[in-house]
Amino acid sequence: MKRGKISNNVIRRLPRYLHFLNDLSYHGVVRVSSGEMASQMGLNASQIRQDFSCFGEFGQQGYGYNVEMLRQEIASILGADQKRSAILVGAGKLGQTLMGNFDFESCGFVLKAAFDIRTDLVGASVSQVPIYHIDFLQDFIRDHQPALAVLTVPRRIAVETANAVADAGVRGIWNFTNISLNVAKSDVIVEDIHFSDSLLSLSYYLKESERDAGEPKGTPT
Amino acid sequence: MKRGKISNNVIRRLPRYLHFLNDLSYHGVVRVSSGEMASQMGLNASQIRQDFSCFGEFGQQGYGYNVEMLRQEIASILGADQKRSAILVGAGKLGQTLMGNFDFESCGFVLKAAFDIRTDLVGASVSQVPIYHIDFLQDFIRDHQPALAVLTVPRRIAVETANAVADAGVRGIWNFTNISLNVAKSDVIVEDIHFSDSLLSLSYYLKESERDAGEPKGTPT
Repeated sequence: MKRGKISNNVIRRLPRYLHFLNDLSYHGVVRVSSGEMASQMGLNASQIRQDFSCFGEFGQQGYGYNVEMLRQEIASILGADQKRSAILVGAGKLGQTLMGNFDFESCGFVLKAAFDIRTDLVGASVSQVPIYHIDFLQDFIRDHQPALAVLTVPRRIAVETANAVADAGVRGIWNFTNISLNVAKSDVIVEDIHFSDSLLSLSYYLKESERDAGEPKGTPT
Repeated sequence: MKRGKISNNVIRRLPRYLHFLNDLSYHGVVRVSSGEMASQMGLNASQIRQDFSCFGEFGQQGYGYNVEMLRQEIASILGADQKRSAILVGAGKLGQTLMGNFDFESCGFVLKAAFDIRTDLVGASVSQVPIYHIDFLQDFIRDHQPALAVLTVPRRIAVETANAVADAGVRGIWNFTNISLNVAKSDVIVEDIHFSDSLLSLSYYLKESERDAGEPKGTPT
């Protein structure tokens, strides 16, 4: 189906819908209405219907959605049903945690290799993913053309590493370096995991809740 | 200053402003205009001015902002200048990575203790943060009243752990479990780090960029 540009806010909600539908599917639920989804997900039913309508007709008024069909449709829209190659650069603690514990395949990626500069890591594997020396990074990308590079290198080499993987042909960077990357090649897509942005927002909401709790309520006694 | 409710989108941009201003401050920049901020951050100058106006007058038309004052003001709004106590529950790979590498203090928190069920971890420390047995979790919370619990436990015990820390008095949960937590105590603030949501969005944008690249451009030859 031909689609126009979908707003970022809609795209950001799709993974949540997918998780929710995965859970329903796992528990054997066959149909779900936008109202049921809304109340369980803390969203608005008309917004859910509007989000789905960006991609076509998934349900019939009054009958709700077929869970499995909707689940597959959203997985397909997100590319979660694909098996794109990915690499990871920087096999330190965070890198190894992702290699060992993160389910790349559920997001449509297969992690093929990791790269690091530390000779004590080179030659090892984590969850059957081999760690190579970073000297081979660009050759590996040219030979295997991974779509994605997971960037878990230290801040000080974040920018040069991002440019190196982009120059070699990687088109997507999943950025854990806590640095805003302006990759020289403009068609590279960078997605940031900013731990500190998340915690700072939480800090704000904690402050607000204290402020609200501290304000006088109702009529004075 | 008395403030109304600020929209979530504004709150989510504040940490980015703070990082940017921290960098400017580090490099000795004294003044910055909303136009300069906009072009370097990839935002819109009028949006930046509007965001700041939610919190009062930070600059003077035509003179830009004093970097250090603006930085301190935003840090204060976010609570990044505070030193609230935090604990971490689940000192596995991801938990230890955060304990060892994440700068809690730059976000206004001091990590006081971690908790785990594994006896080989109990008694150890990571970056001077002690790991205690999870049996002492609720007592510790009641005695030390941490504002925040970082949740890095396995999925299967995510909900019960969240309820346990909330019952004992924690008001904020930084949730790494990849499970949507509906904490029984409704005044608890939960902030999720959903790795897979982020990667699924990136997957979508990669697909879109391929689709755009595959479409015919200009007049046919």
